[in-house]
This record gives sequence, structure tokens and C-alpha cells, in this order.
Amino acid sequence: MTTQLLSARKGEITREMETAARSENVAVDHIQAGILDGSIVITRNNRRAIDGLAIGAGLRVKVNANFGSSRDDADMENELCKMRVAIAAGADAVMDLSTGGDIGLIRKTALAGCAVPMGTVPIYQCAADLLADGKHLMDMTADEMLAAIERHGRDGVDFITIHCGVTKESVKRLSDEGRLLDIVSRGGAIHAKWIEYHREENPLYARFDELVEIAREYDMTLSLGDGLRPGCLADATDRAQVQETIVLGELAARARKAGAQVMIEGPGHMPMDQIAANMKLQKRLCGGAPFYVLGPLVTDIAPGYDHITSAIGGAIAAMSGADFLCYVTPAEHLRLPTPEDVRQGVIAARIAGHAADIARGLPGARQRDDDMARARKRLDWTAQINLSLDPETARRRREETAPADESVCTMCASLCSIKTGSQPVS
Amino acid sequence: MTTQLLSARKGEITREMETAARSENVAVDHIQAGILDGSIVITRNNRRAIDGLAIGAGLRVKVNANFGSSRDDADMENELCKMRVAIAAGADAVMDLSTGGDIGLIRKTALAGCAVPMGTVPIYQCAADLLADGKHLMDMTADEMLAAIERHGRDGVDFITIHCGVTKESVKRLSDEGRLLDIVSRGGAIHAKWIEYHREENPLYARFDELVEIAREYDMTLSLGDGLRPGCLADATDRAQVQETIVLGELAARARKAGAQVMIEGPGHMPMDQIAANMKLQKRLCGGAPFYVLGPLVTDIAPGYDHITSAIGGAIAAMSGADFLCYVTPAEHLRLPTPEDVRQGVIAARIAGHAADIARGLPGARQRDDDMARARKRLDWTAQINLSLDPETARRRREETAPADESVCTMCASLCSIKTGSQPVS
Repeated sequence: MTTQLLSARKGEITREMETAARSENVAVDHIQAGILDGSIVITRNNRRAIDGLAIGAGLRVKVNANFGSSRDDADMENELCKMRVAIAAGADAVMDLSTGGDIGLIRKTALAGCAVPMGTVPIYQCAADLLADGKHLMDMTADEMLAAIERHGRDGVDFITIHCGVTKESVKRLSDEGRLLDIVSRGGAIHAKWIEYHREENPLYARFDELVEIAREYDMTLSLGDGLRPGCLADATDRAQVQETIVLGELAARARKAGAQVMIEGPGHMPMDQIAANMKLQKRLCGGAPFYVLGPLVTDIAPGYDHITSAIGGAIAAMSGADFLCYVTPAEHLRLPTPEDVRQGVIAARIAGHAADIARGLPGARQRDDDMARARKRLDWTAQINLSLDPETARRRREETAPADESVCTMCASLCSIKTGSQPVS
Repeated sequence: MTTQLLSARKGEITREMETAARSENVAVDHIQAGILDGSIVITRNNRRAIDGLAIGAGLRVKVNANFGSSRDDADMENELCKMRVAIAAGADAVMDLSTGGDIGLIRKTALAGCAVPMGTVPIYQCAADLLADGKHLMDMTADEMLAAIERHGRDGVDFITIHCGVTKESVKRLSDEGRLLDIVSRGGAIHAKWIEYHREENPLYARFDELVEIAREYDMTLSLGDGLRPGCLADATDRAQVQETIVLGELAARARKAGAQVMIEGPGHMPMDQIAANMKLQKRLCGGAPFYVLGPLVTDIAPGYDHITSAIGGAIAAMSGADFLCYVTPAEHLRLPTPEDVRQGVIAARIAGHAADIARGLPGARQRDDDMARARKRLDWTAQINLSLDPETARRRREETAPADESVCTMCASLCSIKTGSQPVS
């Protein structure tokens, strides 16, 4: 068993590199070189029979969708439905964030039916299992944390979020400076509290080398989580956030040196004017590692519409260097999402990613847009519908109000500008 | 009868300037100076008994919502309903773009029930009336165009879009360079075709001084329309678009000199990476006039979701200098919007405007976001709902799935990070 990175280091071109190069329409050398210098990962557990997903420099921006049970809502079928809805809507990867019911069974069943890379957050299972056993979160042991990671790797998980940047040092900086909303990452809150309770260093930091060994065994990509990400605009780009990024940069270098693939996670909630600087900072501090961002949400006051607030932030982030967008659904801050929330979230994130691909000048990214423009000029509605990101929704909206003249729509009717412009003058 | 600009020139502080200063929480001198140098307008027809709306430099970004009949759908009550829905959702201004049914009656009825500034596009009425009479669009006379403007002013319309930058010169540049999608503005297409058919200059350009006189009489703000705005990404920032902006800048200076208030309209469809440069260009070419943008839509392939594509573009535009966002609804490119489309469009545009206010550092803009962060930290759900941009939607989404523990939500349940973080360690 080897990793894409170790193969690249030996000068090998793997089947996964070739598949990625074809799907991205780039030279396989670009993929190999990117894996070698850490600016690209191909996420795929070496026990899984799926195509890997390449994420990083010079590639199409990718979209991840979360699903997963909670203690309040642990219906496995419903969660598997969300996974399928997400993939059907075009998610490039999914994460099973289950924290309720039989978490292991959900994960294994999901993996068996999932043709795209799947990520998890192993600490969630540690925590949920403890609570289910009537124990306290602080009873969690370092060995349990590592065992959960090993179990997820063995099950075939393709990438995991681990909060190893939540250290004594970064947590101290957080409490010294103070925050409006403290820690909003579940994993981050658990590790910070654990450090405080046990007066010991975060085991995922202290025993990082063991963790890297597990990751390397399965070629499970490490997604270094931002446990201290800002949860509101006021906390964005504070010392704790930046301190954590520095630590993550150091750990990324160590993981890479040991042959494990690694990406970095980022904010969170952030005013628009800070986003570009944050992307630049992360890329520099973390040696160009692929950047996986949640949001950023550009205002805190739009619960019910956070797929839109995060599409704005995600688009700017991706234009400024982020490589992988974690979707946010309209349910964020309010409830576990429904399948329809999931669909809305994926579409919004795909819009953001696609707009960024165009802005970044990714070769060929504008092709479908140009085809749409041509279809509009021809007043070819069938082509317009088919070229849409979500053809079904576009078709339904058009059909709900039928125009008298089939060549136009009910908005402009006889005053359609395309029609006016194409009429002969004489 | 005078205008805000002529009053400012005489050193007067009007009641409207005072009201605007209070509502924006800025010094009235700032408003007066902005009107004087053309960087601020207060839009309000001097026959209307409403508060004016100040738009421009150093002020909160404003949102406009369109409503109005088309030939396919000319139910006045339905359009008035959309107007009310838009205002209830927080639109700062509305435009009646009616092109079907009794357009004059719809306008007068709407104005009578509209407490915010209302704009129109007089050429739409000219065109619709001609077609209703069985005539050809090209039969339109210059006198009819000016008469429509006069009629709208007399009725109390607060601002009008006029496409006077569609000139022989700019249209020639458009056809010389060629476009994927030609002209997508209804007014722009009519004027361009009129120029071609009559082999004469656009009357709204040739007789601009008469037009300014009408505007001045009613203090009806001139919104210099971008009839040649790009309708797809491929056409963005082409010579025709920039040529038109140059002409609009010249006309803005003439209007201002004559004492009329003026703002400029902008794109359209545009890749994200071109937006900031376009805002800078417009401000420089048009002497700092308030910029009223439609979109920009940052991809062409998302019909059904263009409130999102335009929220992304609008947020970046406003962060980069745009002052007034015209909403786009999920119905754009597909049909005349429904009242619910209108509501969705207004909320999306308000998110964009608010995010930009924060990014621009508008004093106090983040207050409500900070209050939301505090409410989240307290797990105070009543406050969170009340602080939401759309409390009803937030409340409904939360109530649809009730958490077992009322202090959290069904997403994280017992693993809520705020709850974990606030627990005592011992």
C-alpha cells in the first residue's frame, strides 16, 4: 500500500493521476507535480473502488456536501437519501457527519453506495459514542481518538477532518484576546475543552506522527480542520484563527514529508473585504496546500438564506485561491437540513465554484456559458433548459407560465430585446 | 419648483436632505456636498408626498425591485401585490416596468399606494402603446418619446431609465466588434433598431437638453440606462459597453450642470474578476455619479437561480463602489416573476447590499450581525429569529423540526459547540 504522494515522489504516474488529468483536461505532469509539491491532492482511500478526486492548484473548484444524522434525527434512510440528492445535484464529494444512531453502520452503508470521495470527522463518533454510553465528553481518551481515525481509515473513508491546530497555544491566544462567539466548531470545542479539563496538549497534535502513519496506510487525505474558525464577522481573522493556521501549516509540512496527502480547512464567517487576504495568507503559511473552505458567510443575519451568504463568500474565496467549497444549506444555524435543503445548498455552491473557475481563467470554463448565450440568441429554449445547471427547475419555472408566443418568455413578451434586434429594418 | 441639486447649489439644506441625513446617520453637510458634486442623489419627484431616498457615496447600499405587467400577463392586482411584497421584504425603491394592459392606470395606481420612490422606463410605454394600436415599433416618433417622459414626470414618477447612450457611435462600435448575444436591454434594442431604421441619431441623445428640462421641472432623477449592457459573460467590458459609459459620463455632466440629478446604470452579465475594474471605470468616467447595477450575473448557466448569481455579482460590485442594486429574481430569463420570486429576489439583493456595507466599513453596519452573534452565544433563539433578515422564514425552518433540547438545534443537538464551550470543566 502506498500513497499518491509517495508514488509521485518515486516518479510514478498512477492510474488515479491519469484519470484526474483526463477529467480535468490538464497534462498528467501537472497533476503529478502538484501532488509532489503539495498543491494538489487526489483524495481516495486505497481500499475504495472509486475514481479519486483531484483538488488543488490549476484545477476546477470542487464542491462538498455534508449529510449525516444527529441525535435528534437519526433516520439512516433519510441521510442516505440526502447523500444521493447531493451527488445527483453535482456534489464532487460528500461528508458523513453523523452523530446519532448507529454511526458505524451509516458510514459503512453510505460508503458502499457512494461513487464520489467521502469524508468524515472521526471525533464526532468518539463524542457521540461516549454520550450514548452515558459518559461525559471529557472522558474521551487519546487512544480512543486515534482508534476512531484508524477505524474510519479501515472502513474506506477517503478524507478526514482532524482538529490538530486546536492546541494549548492557539486556545490561549483565543482566550487572551476574547471573542464575541468563542468556538463554533464542534470538534474545536471538544478539543479546547479537553485541553482545559485535562491540562494536557491536544492528542491529535501531540501524537500527530501516529495519526499521519494511519493516514498514509490508507492514503486517507488529512483535512486539517479549523477548529477555531470564526463563527461571526466580528471574530474573523483574529489572532486565534491566524495562530491555528500557522500551526496547520507546520503540520501540513510534516504530513507531506511523511508521505501523507493534506489539505487545510478555512473560515467560517468573514466580511467580504477580508476574504482575499485570508486566502493569500493560508496559501503562504501552508505551503500552497489545497484550501477547503466552509462559507465564508459574509453576513450573520440571514438564517434561512445561508446558502446565499456562503455562495457570495465562497465565490470570492475560490476566485482568490480556495480550491474546495463546502456547501452551506438554507437550514444552517436552524436545523438539520432536509433533502431539498441539501439540493439548494449544492446548487448554490456549484454556482460559486463555477463563477470562480471563470474568474480564475480556467481553460474552457466559460464554454457552457457561451453555449447558453448562443442558445439565448437563437431563442432556443430547449437548449437553454438543457444547458442550465438545474434543468428541471428551469423547465418548471418556464412552464408554469406559458408565453403566448413560444419563441419568447412572459417577462418581455412582444418586446423581447433579442427579437427586436433580429428583425429586419425594411 | 426646484431640484435638490439647485437647492444645494444655493447653499440650502432641504427637508429631504435632513430626512436623508437622519435616516443614514450622517451629517447633513455630507448629503448636501454629495448632491452638489453629483456623488449623491435624493430621488423624489417634487409632486410626491414621500420621503426621498438618498443614494450614493458614503451611504447604505440600496435595493430596487422591479414589478410590472407584460403583454402575456397584465393583471394589475397581481402587479400591485408584487410591489407590496417587495416593499414589505425591504426594497428601498421599486420600478414599474409594465408593458401590458392599461399601463398608465397601473402606474398611477401604483404611485398612489407606494411609500418608496418609484421609477419607470417611459420608452416601454411608447413601445407597448404602439404595438397595442397595431403599429410598428419603428413608427415611434421623437416627440412621442419626449411626451412619454413628460407624462411620467407629471404623474409623479421619481426616477426614469432613459437609454441616451445608445447612439450612432456606440451602436457602430457594437456591430464593428460583434457580440455573442447582441443587445439584451429592451430599451437599448428599440433605440438601436430605431437609429438603424431612421438613419438618425437617438432622439434621447439628440434632444437631451429638452429631456433634462423635463427632469428638472419635476426633480425626477435621470437614471442613464445601459442599453448596451452585456447579456452574457463573453460580451462583458467590450468596446460598446465602455463607449456607452463614456457617453453617459458626458451626459451626466451636462444634466448636472443644468441642475438635474443623475445616476448611471451598469451591467449586466460579467465574470467576477472584471467587476471591480468596471466599478472604478464607471465612477471615474461619470464623475462619481451613483452607480445603479443590474446584477452583474457572474455566470450564464443558472436560470432558476439568478437571484444567487446576481447576489454574488452585486455584493462584489457594491463592495467595489456600486450604490444601488437592482434585484434579480429566480424567474429571470424564464418568465415574469411571481410574488414569491419577488420576495426571494429582494432578500438576496439585501444580503448582497448589507454584506457590502460591512465590507465598505459603513459605520454601524455590523451592529445587527454582532447582536446576532451575541444571541447565538446566549443560545437565545427568540433573539436570533428576530434579528434575522427574514424572521418568518427563519422561524418556520426552525419550527419544522423541533429539537429535543430547546436550547440547541437539530443539527448538532447534544454536540452543540456553544453548549460544549460554555460547560464548566469541573
